[in-house]
Amino acid sequence: MTSPNDRRRAAVIGTGLIGGSLGLALRSRGWFVTGMDASADTESMALELGVLDRIGEDPEAAITFVATPFGSTVEVARQALGRARPGAVVTDVAGVKAAVAGAIEHPGFVGGHPMAGSEQVGLDGSDADLFVGATWVLTPTASTDASAYATVRQVVGSLGAEVVSLSPEQHDTLVAVVSHVPHLTAATLMNLADRASDEHVALLRLAAGGFRDMTRIAAGHPGIWPDVCTANSQAILSTLDELLTQLSAMREKVASGDRMWLLEVLENAAIARRSLPKAAVRPERLAEVRVPVPDRPGVLAEITTLAGSLGVNISDLEIAHSAEGERGVLVLVIGADTVGDLQEGLADRGYRSTARGLE
Amino acid sequence: MTSPNDRRRAAVIGTGLIGGSLGLALRSRGWFVTGMDASADTESMALELGVLDRIGEDPEAAITFVATPFGSTVEVARQALGRARPGAVVTDVAGVKAAVAGAIEHPGFVGGHPMAGSEQVGLDGSDADLFVGATWVLTPTASTDASAYATVRQVVGSLGAEVVSLSPEQHDTLVAVVSHVPHLTAATLMNLADRASDEHVALLRLAAGGFRDMTRIAAGHPGIWPDVCTANSQAILSTLDELLTQLSAMREKVASGDRMWLLEVLENAAIARRSLPKAAVRPERLAEVRVPVPDRPGVLAEITTLAGSLGVNISDLEIAHSAEGERGVLVLVIGADTVGDLQEGLADRGYRSTARGLE
Repeated sequence: MTSPNDRRRAAVIGTGLIGGSLGLALRSRGWFVTGMDASADTESMALELGVLDRIGEDPEAAITFVATPFGSTVEVARQALGRARPGAVVTDVAGVKAAVAGAIEHPGFVGGHPMAGSEQVGLDGSDADLFVGATWVLTPTASTDASAYATVRQVVGSLGAEVVSLSPEQHDTLVAVVSHVPHLTAATLMNLADRASDEHVALLRLAAGGFRDMTRIAAGHPGIWPDVCTANSQAILSTLDELLTQLSAMREKVASGDRMWLLEVLENAAIARRSLPKAAVRPERLAEVRVPVPDRPGVLAEITTLAGSLGVNISDLEIAHSAEGERGVLVLVIGADTVGDLQEGLADRGYRSTARGLE
Repeated sequence: MTSPNDRRRAAVIGTGLIGGSLGLALRSRGWFVTGMDASADTESMALELGVLDRIGEDPEAAITFVATPFGSTVEVARQALGRARPGAVVTDVAGVKAAVAGAIEHPGFVGGHPMAGSEQVGLDGSDADLFVGATWVLTPTASTDASAYATVRQVVGSLGAEVVSLSPEQHDTLVAVVSHVPHLTAATLMNLADRASDEHVALLRLAAGGFRDMTRIAAGHPGIWPDVCTANSQAILSTLDELLTQLSAMREKVASGDRMWLLEVLENAAIARRSLPKAAVRPERLAEVRVPVPDRPGVLAEITTLAGSLGVNISDLEIAHSAEGERGVLVLVIGADTVGDLQEGLADRGYRSTARGLE
């Protein structure tokens, strides 16, 4: 066994489903992983299951993952930043990002959210491959150091995740639409069916696959939702308002028997659902885009979230600093077919860039 | 090859997904199946795929399945009843029952609805095992002849389906809750996400498994929904109204930050979802309940839908007529653990019954 000193060192704080899976994934890739959990029993189990090499803090860790429940994310991340060695980075996995980003303005902090779910809850459900093929959102801000971002990006990419960068606010709006409001709606539908079945016990036996699929997420851990609803209330409210508006319109069209309207709405939905991208597709041909950038905060966040919002998938990212230290070059490896989109977006924001194809 | 005259004969009108699967399932169980479709191409394909033995009508068929699109169900079923030999039965597979039952009051007709879905559409997706383990609702009415009901029950049971009897109105209320409104809601959520993604192309890549599960039904064939919404508008409207009320309450609680309320609602939903019965479980021990019944219309429907609404699963059903023809005995085979519930329900409605355990 190699000594911890010879190996890359990571820390994981909070060893539930995500933290436990992070421990397994990192260890299977050669990292020495130190970790903690609020529960001593969970810590012991984490050692037994091979999730951690050691219980405790590791001031030498190159990267610390904060995977505690949402309520303590900010506090735990601040503590981790306080004890981290220079150059080390701290990231989190919370499902709401603006509240965390607003509370932690630190160059070594990069907010993150692995979009990997499971009906499993807790350490028992840990899986070294949980992140393979999953989308992992990073939310760099104006405070984020470019090297810190590049480190987190590289590490989570090495666990098999596809990284997308968004601003914390964009992230929160989008998850309200694709996760939070769908969850609240699934729970509401499940409760309607449950109430109706008090009168007719046959009801739930009639629930065929479609209903099962649609309400599956409602079986998930309820405990996280009050926090999510509080932390992301603004985006959830505006999405719920839009859902209420659209469902009321649907109600009126059913009442008036507007068959054409109904058909059109359902056809749109079917087309959109069928074209829902399965997972990020690795582009066949890659290209390198080099962007000379001023060495000031916020540039990295601006460019990576631009790529994210253009749907440009960054396969690799590197920062080359110039000798003078006032300018650097951001080197992005992206799909060759997306070079035009990215260069156009960069030009709109005043960045010159050069591109070349890679073998 | 045995001649058609030596074999049980069935007819299937309309060879889409359900009709095609019926043809395959019946033929694999030894039936000689004659069928038709509005499209001559589909008829030829049905012969090629082994869905049908023969194209055309079969006045000798013991059972005819009407599996046409909803709009023509009533007309096609009436024609089939018109040409059926005495004692033959006609059933349909439409997803809305009260409109069909109201239009066809005939002793030889038994409304039905196999709750077997598939993302497949059309003959191509046909599967001889589509109905295995599926719930198949039958909706006998006061006009339904008890022997006709027993025949349909026996045949669809032999295809692997679990039969539940409900009144047409009960059926329609329940499918509004577990199928129609969930579908309309999934389509609405999908369209919200699709619209939001016009601004942020990254959006749909963030859609993790939960969103995929929840919107899967929205990918289904849109063409049937205008008919469904028209035929079941009353139940759909009242369910949509309840959904709107509950989602508005959810909105207010998110706005006011009522964490306890949110937690309770989500916990209820999680418990209900986790206890959603997977499929009808065949009881380990069976019992026979014998119910002397007057030989008048409506008794069969009353007793079988009573069992359905009590959640009593009828494994077998037989009608023994007395010599005088004025009374008969309905013999129901049910799970031994449900005998008490059924006998109590029967007594409440003035029926005496006797029960004995079966080996």
